[in-house]
Amino acid sequence: MLRKKTVRKKKIALRLTQHNPERRRRIVCIGGGTGVSVVLSGLKKYPVDLTAIVSMFDSAGSGGKLRDELGILPPGDVRQCLLTLSDNKGIVELCRFRFEKGLLKGHSFGNLLIAAAENYSGSFEKAIAKISKILNTKGKVIPVTLNHSDIKVLLKNGILLENEDDIVNSANLSTVGIEKMFLEPEVSANKKAIKAIKEADLIIIGPGKFYTSLIPNLLVKDIKETILKSKAKKVFICNLMTQSGNTDNLKMEDFVSILESYLGEGVFDHIIFNKERLDKEAFKEVKKAFPRTAFVDYNRQSVKDKKFIALDLLDKKIRRINSNDVFVNGSNKRTMVLHDSNKLAKIILKICRPR
Amino acid sequence: MLRKKTVRKKKIALRLTQHNPERRRRIVCIGGGTGVSVVLSGLKKYPVDLTAIVSMFDSAGSGGKLRDELGILPPGDVRQCLLTLSDNKGIVELCRFRFEKGLLKGHSFGNLLIAAAENYSGSFEKAIAKISKILNTKGKVIPVTLNHSDIKVLLKNGILLENEDDIVNSANLSTVGIEKMFLEPEVSANKKAIKAIKEADLIIIGPGKFYTSLIPNLLVKDIKETILKSKAKKVFICNLMTQSGNTDNLKMEDFVSILESYLGEGVFDHIIFNKERLDKEAFKEVKKAFPRTAFVDYNRQSVKDKKFIALDLLDKKIRRINSNDVFVNGSNKRTMVLHDSNKLAKIILKICRPR
Repeated sequence: MLRKKTVRKKKIALRLTQHNPERRRRIVCIGGGTGVSVVLSGLKKYPVDLTAIVSMFDSAGSGGKLRDELGILPPGDVRQCLLTLSDNKGIVELCRFRFEKGLLKGHSFGNLLIAAAENYSGSFEKAIAKISKILNTKGKVIPVTLNHSDIKVLLKNGILLENEDDIVNSANLSTVGIEKMFLEPEVSANKKAIKAIKEADLIIIGPGKFYTSLIPNLLVKDIKETILKSKAKKVFICNLMTQSGNTDNLKMEDFVSILESYLGEGVFDHIIFNKERLDKEAFKEVKKAFPRTAFVDYNRQSVKDKKFIALDLLDKKIRRINSNDVFVNGSNKRTMVLHDSNKLAKIILKICRPR
Repeated sequence: MLRKKTVRKKKIALRLTQHNPERRRRIVCIGGGTGVSVVLSGLKKYPVDLTAIVSMFDSAGSGGKLRDELGILPPGDVRQCLLTLSDNKGIVELCRFRFEKGLLKGHSFGNLLIAAAENYSGSFEKAIAKISKILNTKGKVIPVTLNHSDIKVLLKNGILLENEDDIVNSANLSTVGIEKMFLEPEVSANKKAIKAIKEADLIIIGPGKFYTSLIPNLLVKDIKETILKSKAKKVFICNLMTQSGNTDNLKMEDFVSILESYLGEGVFDHIIFNKERLDKEAFKEVKKAFPRTAFVDYNRQSVKDKKFIALDLLDKKIRRINSNDVFVNGSNKRTMVLHDSNKLAKIILKICRPR
């Protein structure tokens, strides 16, 4: 009898948390491929309703081969999030495989899957739906816009950086300073992105490449306004390390204030940031690959404010650069240091508990 | 209380038939892609243990493009059976999609999937295992051999047909007659095929292209001997129609006696054959595409012998030739008329009921 009761209790709990969409918290993550993927890979283990809204501003450069040879958009960030949310390990492994010879040399199977789905379905959106089904993704991936556009940065010295590649490879963003950042052409938001933001219980921005994966999303028409109107809690997960040429010497508080200059002052309910550091050996290896990078520092004062959440959040196993990795795009400058996705998930779930 | 009992009964039945491998009947189907696929697609809906042993004698001609461009064997029959056994509809649909432009023009996504899996896994066998997992196949697909070989036919007029393409396209097999049929080089059987045959409760041969998909399997070293030693019931499912140049004018009894000349007289416990005919309109369409084809006829006397099972087994919806179909290989001569897979499954299950 006792056992029966326990079983019934468990069933009810299960129904409430897993099967009743009314009870599932809706979490929207906004950013680029790598950063959002880390957040998603921790959260996907919990009964929450996950949506990734990802940037779509890959340069023609890095995606040119895809466009010329396979006739598809270069949706690196979308692909990465889809793979992260998949629970079909077999096909995910294969998607990361890159052909080394023959006709397909240099292409990853993931690219071919997207190419087939896009050519078969006739649209990028339908292709995402099809691939989500094939991969059995535990959440949705939504491109922030369905139109093509490039990120432009006008530096304070009058020089114009023309696209994502230019910006990532520039050494001058942090030294010269930014006069203006904009999308050309202006693009309207994907309606599904707007809907997801409206319905969210929690909106997370970051981590990710600050000027090429995070801020551009906020420049898409209506995205900023919808975030501001939303009743969701808003959280910024600060980057672990500075990005050479882009965010050198920025402290956590600088990241927040720059982001708020685009989005609105005081918009964040919480800022989550890391206070852990790598072991000497690992740090040496990172510095060898990225000589100018450093851990993002913070003012000890900030921690007194409850909205700043300082935690040990490092994944101590650094990622080596791997030329066979599906995530590498033209610019080939991905981070070696990532957040511990499980620790991130735990703090996020604490924040988004029903009020 | 009554309901509880019913539920428990159902559970037990389920456990016995579905989850206890001891109770599942082991059915081995031997043949080529299309024929075996029809048999499998009916049987996969039942709790039986399915294995397809398929021929591997595609000519260099039809598979040349695959070998040159993708660096893989041309495993048309294996691919077809894998897709049939899959329960992941999304990816099966995509596998049948053929690129119409760009670098991949002419390739089906199914080919790319095999190419990726083969290049990634380093062997054709491992690739099959990987793809089976991705496709979530309801049964196993085993190439009859892992070595390359060609089918040779020496005609009674001294002419040698050099490979599968030659044989399928020959107009002389049935008129001139076959002196000798052999594989060159001789190849040994896949050990997994031998094991499956040994453990089978039922072995089904056919339907399929008689001289290029059925008989060649029996020419692989040890296959014939293992079939003969096996305690399994043995069934031949006779082709529906004659194949121009190959089996013109053969009756059901001729198919049986030719097959038995390779395998051993009286080897079959049952011969299943069709006595249904197409509607006039449909038959006209088939004759337009294949002017020399005809329904396989039979002697009315045979039906008196219990081992011959005559039934209405036609799928009345004929298949149109479709250039976008993944099943079309170089020879482009696939049948338009297929068995009704559900009817086939029902009679097969009756035959292999536990003794």
